[in-house]
This record gives sequence, C-alpha cells and structure tokens, in this order.
Amino acid sequence: MADKNQRIVLASRPQGWVTEDNFRLEETPVPEPKAGEVLVRNHYLSLDPYMRGRMNAGKSYSAPVEIGDVMVGGTVGEVVASNDPAFKPGDKVVGRLGWQLYSVATAPTLTKVDASQVPLSAYLGPVGMPGVTAWIGTYEICQPKAGETLVVNAASGAVGSVVGQLAKMKGARVVGIAGGATKVKHVLDDLGFDACVDYRSPTFREDFKAATQNGVDCLFENVGGEVMETVVARFNPFARMALCGLVSQYNETQPQGLKTLFSILANRVTMRGFIVSDHLDKWPQALAELGAGVASGKIKYRETVAEGLPNAPKAFIGMLKGQNLGKQLVKLI
Amino acid sequence: MADKNQRIVLASRPQGWVTEDNFRLEETPVPEPKAGEVLVRNHYLSLDPYMRGRMNAGKSYSAPVEIGDVMVGGTVGEVVASNDPAFKPGDKVVGRLGWQLYSVATAPTLTKVDASQVPLSAYLGPVGMPGVTAWIGTYEICQPKAGETLVVNAASGAVGSVVGQLAKMKGARVVGIAGGATKVKHVLDDLGFDACVDYRSPTFREDFKAATQNGVDCLFENVGGEVMETVVARFNPFARMALCGLVSQYNETQPQGLKTLFSILANRVTMRGFIVSDHLDKWPQALAELGAGVASGKIKYRETVAEGLPNAPKAFIGMLKGQNLGKQLVKLI
Repeated sequence: MADKNQRIVLASRPQGWVTEDNFRLEETPVPEPKAGEVLVRNHYLSLDPYMRGRMNAGKSYSAPVEIGDVMVGGTVGEVVASNDPAFKPGDKVVGRLGWQLYSVATAPTLTKVDASQVPLSAYLGPVGMPGVTAWIGTYEICQPKAGETLVVNAASGAVGSVVGQLAKMKGARVVGIAGGATKVKHVLDDLGFDACVDYRSPTFREDFKAATQNGVDCLFENVGGEVMETVVARFNPFARMALCGLVSQYNETQPQGLKTLFSILANRVTMRGFIVSDHLDKWPQALAELGAGVASGKIKYRETVAEGLPNAPKAFIGMLKGQNLGKQLVKLI
Repeated sequence: MADKNQRIVLASRPQGWVTEDNFRLEETPVPEPKAGEVLVRNHYLSLDPYMRGRMNAGKSYSAPVEIGDVMVGGTVGEVVASNDPAFKPGDKVVGRLGWQLYSVATAPTLTKVDASQVPLSAYLGPVGMPGVTAWIGTYEICQPKAGETLVVNAASGAVGSVVGQLAKMKGARVVGIAGGATKVKHVLDDLGFDACVDYRSPTFREDFKAATQNGVDCLFENVGGEVMETVVARFNPFARMALCGLVSQYNETQPQGLKTLFSILANRVTMRGFIVSDHLDKWPQALAELGAGVASGKIKYRETVAEGLPNAPKAFIGMLKGQNLGKQLVKLI
C-alpha cells in the first residue's frame, strides 16, 4: 500500500478540443475512512466519452466537474479498510470513485463484484455501464427483429461492440461502422458482425450503401456528424434510432446537428435520446445477461489499457479521437 | 349539373418555391361511372402542406404526382350518380378525389358523412384528416400530462388549432406559436390557448422564453427551421416531440435540419415522425371524439375559403406562406 494518493483534477475548461493542459496530477495523503465509510484502492479507471461533457461549464446531463475537483469516472478496485459491516478488506468493488488511486466512499455507492467468473476489468466494460448502455439502447429502444438491419457506429468501441453482438442474438443483420482497417477487421473477424464499413474511406458512402441494400431499420448512434447523416438518409419506414452519444461533436464549437431531419419525418422514425442511468430498473436483468454472455465467451470484448494514472489524460484524448480498440481503461496498480 | 369537368394537373415540378406556373387548369368531359363506381360532385377541396412533397420527383411519404396527373387532395361532395348499392344520389361523402369538380370513385374509397350535426366542410378540417393528425400526435405521441407545457407551432392552422385544444382538455398548459398579430389574437381569444408568441417579432426568443418559464415537455412540430430550434433548446428532460411537418423547409433547396440535436440527447427526448394514414386503427375513436367536440362547440375552428377551382394554386401557395387563418379550403360549387 503506497502512502500517497494520486489524483487528477480538472485544471481548466477546454475551448474546443480537450488538451492535456486541462488536467493536473496531484499528490495527496491517502484519505482516512470515517464511520460508515470504506477505503478503496482502485485497480482500473474507465475512460468514457460522457466525461467530455462534464468538463464544460453548464448543465449537460448532470452537473459539471468544478475546476480543481477530481475528474469523475467509473472504477473497479479492492477494499483496503472498511468501517461498514457490508464490506471487508479484499472485497472487489465497482464504483464511481474518479480519476485517483484511493477513494473513500459510503457503502451504498459501491457494488461488490465476483471476479472469479469474469475479469475485474470487465465490470467497467461489457458487464458494466457500457454493456448496460448497449443492452438498453438495443433491446429497449432499437428493438431489432429477425431479418432487420441494425447499424451501429463506433462499432469496435466498448458500447458498439456489445450492441452488435446483442442484435445478432435477436437474428438481426448487423452492420458496423468503424475507422481504419484494424478496427474493421476486428469487428468482422472477432465480433462476428455481418458487415463493417470504414468511415475514413473515400468510398464510405458507396460502401455503406452496398452494405445496407435493404435499408436501415435500427441505428444505435454514438458519433453524430456526417457518418450519422449517411445512415439516417437510408432509414426504412418505421426505423428506430437510439441516440446514445455524439462523440464527433463534443469538441466542436459549432456542432452540425442533423441535416437529414426530413428522413425522420418521411420515414416515421422514432428517435430517442437516452442515458443509461435513467434505466436503473433494467440494470439487474441486463447485468445478469451480459455477465453470463461474457463468462460463457458468447460476448467477446477487447480492451485498450493505459498504464498508470499520469497517462489518463493522454489516453482520454486518444479515445475521443478513436485511437483505442474496445474499452479504454487506465491500469492504476 | 355542369356539363364539363374542371381539373388542375401538375404542369411542372417546382425548383424551390412553388409557383402558379407549376399547375394547369384543364376542362374535360364529366366522367361516366362504370359498374361499381360512384360519380361525385366535389363541394370543397382541402389544401394541405403535404401536397408540396407530392409535387417533387422521388419518393417522400408516398409516390409523387406525375406530370400531367390531377393533383391529389381530400374532398367533400355529393353523390350525383351511383352504380354501387352502398351510395345513392344526394349522399354526402368525403374522399380523396383531387383538385377537380367531378370524380368517379369506387365505393370503398368514399366515406358517407352526416352534415346535419357539423358542416360538410368540417370533414376536411377538425373532423377530418387535420383533426385526426392533431389527435394522434397529441394523444399518442406527445401525451401531455396535467401541468406540463405543450408547444405547437402553426398554432392557428387546421392541425395546430386542434392540437392546443386537445392538450388543454388533458390539463396541459398550451403555448402556441403563430405569425402576426391577427393569428396570435385568434389563438388566444378564440382558441383559448394559455399563451401565444409571434415568431415574426424581433423579440421572439425572449418572448418564447417568457412564455415557457417551466421549459417545454411536449412539442407538436409542423414547421421546422429556426422556430423549431428555439423550442427544442428549451426541452425539459424526457420531453416528447411529434414531428408532423416541416412546412418552412419544403420549398428550400438546402433544408436546415435540426442544429439543436444535442438537446434530444441531453434531455433524453423521444422524437417521433408520424403520418396520420399509418394510424388507421385510431381514426374511428379520434373522429368520434372530434365530431362530438365540434358539434358541442367545445372544439372551435376557423376556415379560409378560396372561391372556385381556378384559385386553388394561388390559395395553396398562400397557405405555404402562412397567409391563411385556420383550415384552407377551396369552394367548388
């Protein structure tokens, strides 16, 4: 057990693209758990696109991170000291303990997890928030039927990779969109999608049209921008669109929105913005199914792991630029 | 009974704004009903924004009108000859008989209506397609609850006027948007909306904000463009948006779409494009409620009536420019 905590705080708000200067690494004493509190040594930090929104002033989904505050984030780790009978040292826990090595938390904010069936880090990926996000958007919003075509962009990412595999289980034809040959190959060969199109290719529109000859019935949208427009323009009547994220737009000072709005009207599309934390009632079912899928090997996943907390800002920026394959984590131990 | 039919055909497809030159008036013999057919003398023609889409080449909701074909449109009229036992001369009928004085139709495409409780023309307005459109979008999609704020633009129009009155019946606070003092006064004084804002005013954004101090829970969207963006930016979490039309964009060669897409995501909005003809199962209930509301005077409506078929193109263009108050009709008799 190190005698110092390390943490990363928000140093300044980004103007357009986030930079490493927007973050600051600090050393502080390891906090002492008070009555009812638990001290956790974090093993992995999850890096996710929503964090970009929290760096802005003003309300997005929820309150912004204040300047000087520890960056928010999901974590998995091990209890090292506990003043609550629900936890004992050695327990593995998932929580939202932020960009730091040690945290104290109250018992209700932590969930004990079993790292014997699936690796601890998977609780930040397919058996955690990204997996549940995929489950809600696919099953509750997109509702793909057998024979329908579902499209997901950021297809090799933590959410997109699970979306496609869940939709395949319902008999849908799944078309991924990803950036670059390595990701496309991963989506096809490892994740088993029916097709995957490289949005960086100069022939993207033609390639996408060829991959969706029967049109698009479902879209799980993570990205926004021109890639989204290309999909929306190919909607079939009564298509469903789960609007999960707009990662291509978060660093733009003039977001482009949706130019193809008329397709929503003419095709009678249902578009629904959603945030996974609004659907807490569905988490137990989703986590049970996702856990079983990962444990059995039926749901496959990939991780990109940055080593050490000081590398978190660089890894975060890389993720926003699409440089990761699968779930972006920071190993803290 | 005149011995000639008059009809208006599509002479050419518009480039941008529709003009009177895009139409041509023709005289033809009155058609003879064949076995199983009914001859109808149309009394009123309905003019509706969707017709603009049918003037374009390429699929919108449904097939375009071909060059030289009679313009499509809803009509009410009287049977003058019938070769089907379901109809007899003198019956009042609603149908989709197009921009013409006489039409033959098969019995299943006509609906007999009772003009003793509500005027015949109301079957093209509040007790017809526009009324049912309002009913579906308000009750099936927006689903306003008591105390919530519903916004409808084109508030004095055939659809918008009914939307607001239906939402009021559910206890919602209703805010209309309309163009010019006459319409605003009509929406407030005659239709009984809680507020109405003039989108042509230089202080529109401030006025709208003042009228929606608790944000917006439901939007019935007919218009698109900057007026829509102003409303979408004020959505509350879990707002519902019925996307019924984008009349401000139909004559634009570069439609502006939805710049404020991020509000759909951040506020977890459900946006649903719809077309009233997809919901045929709901028409009987909707028409029964709307008919009772109009007969009792609880649902109020206004008509703008152009005299004579030759004036239909001019009246249609005026409607697209918002020059009508309430339902735009053409009187054919």
